[in-house]
Amino acid sequence: MLWSPTSPAPGAALVLLGHGGGLHKRSAGLVSRAQALVTRYGFHAAAIDAPGHGERPRSTTDQQWVDSMLAARAAGESLAPSITAYNGSLAERAVPEWQATIDALQTLPEIGTTSSIGYSGMTLASAIGIPLVATDSRITAAIFGGVFVYDAILDAARKITVPLEFLLPWDDPEIDRDSGLAVFDAFGSAEKTLLAFPGSHFRVPAGRLDTRFFPRELASDRPEA
Amino acid sequence: MLWSPTSPAPGAALVLLGHGGGLHKRSAGLVSRAQALVTRYGFHAAAIDAPGHGERPRSTTDQQWVDSMLAARAAGESLAPSITAYNGSLAERAVPEWQATIDALQTLPEIGTTSSIGYSGMTLASAIGIPLVATDSRITAAIFGGVFVYDAILDAARKITVPLEFLLPWDDPEIDRDSGLAVFDAFGSAEKTLLAFPGSHFRVPAGRLDTRFFPRELASDRPEA
Repeated sequence: MLWSPTSPAPGAALVLLGHGGGLHKRSAGLVSRAQALVTRYGFHAAAIDAPGHGERPRSTTDQQWVDSMLAARAAGESLAPSITAYNGSLAERAVPEWQATIDALQTLPEIGTTSSIGYSGMTLASAIGIPLVATDSRITAAIFGGVFVYDAILDAARKITVPLEFLLPWDDPEIDRDSGLAVFDAFGSAEKTLLAFPGSHFRVPAGRLDTRFFPRELASDRPEA
Repeated sequence: MLWSPTSPAPGAALVLLGHGGGLHKRSAGLVSRAQALVTRYGFHAAAIDAPGHGERPRSTTDQQWVDSMLAARAAGESLAPSITAYNGSLAERAVPEWQATIDALQTLPEIGTTSSIGYSGMTLASAIGIPLVATDSRITAAIFGGVFVYDAILDAARKITVPLEFLLPWDDPEIDRDSGLAVFDAFGSAEKTLLAFPGSHFRVPAGRLDTRFFPRELASDRPEA
């Protein structure tokens, strides 16, 4: 999915939007974030389905991980074992897919290679986005948050040096607060902001957290751009 | 000090600005925050000197606390014992002074009793502001942060239920990170946001943290106002 202004400015920035676990590239929240980027800031926004999400069939192995995760949730047990394996595997597959997506977007005349690129997404979108941003230097600003933390996430976070914001649900029943503080601490970025809010990752008070991060970091008239 | 728009709107909000330890009501940072509130949002802003700060002579007892604090800092020792006693005493004196200031401001025709009131200030300004907001229900939104935490601060934080933001320097050499997380946790407010940033409380990246909190919370046309 690609959302663009009717008449995009040359070099208008591009924001890659990840979706959460079980959601997809046309989920309501994602579409509303895309529309805001286009109409408020004149940016492009793009989204793809993660493996086994949206229009993409789910493999037997992926389904087994999902079943384990749902069984753990129903039993009130920790989701960590199943989510660590599942998200880690999804990220290994999705990172090259996002890189191919960037390649394809950069062939479009209205985007090209001069547009600054940001990445935004919580939970599964951060499990994929953190390794992606650690790997692909074309992405120069990111918003992450509410992510299950395991060693590969911490390792990737240490490699990231771009400006970022990290959204932390303060009372999430399923995602441990201290692990969120640890991953924020691990990011190698000199410019990073933690935004923590009461409640779980299911209700993010986006309006209250809005620091106009992408227009500030990706605008084509930035002195350092 | 009172800063007001040339032609204030009826019921324009009022923000009380506290100053940090050793500073005063005309400190450069405070004045620049006041000017932004007036010129960007059409608000009133007001500031007073804390006891023994700015134009107010410092008592012998206060000077002894300051001397102990500076000696501890020079020796690389914890500032907690001296700051706990000093800030606690300053807050006991400053809370009624701020309340008398609000009383006086509300007698002015351009402010009156219909203006929403916010409070903003870190470090000493939070050591005073947290007990103030816990005590005076006329203040309906607050920004705090970077405060030395002791029992009286935690007790007052638990009583606060107004929307607030809490600014946390992530690597402050003198103010313990965990105590900041504990006071954020303690606030009784349903609507509270933690904004953490690298470095110490001496360099707050105000632009990166700006969520337009006061215009959102204090605007006279809010549905619930």
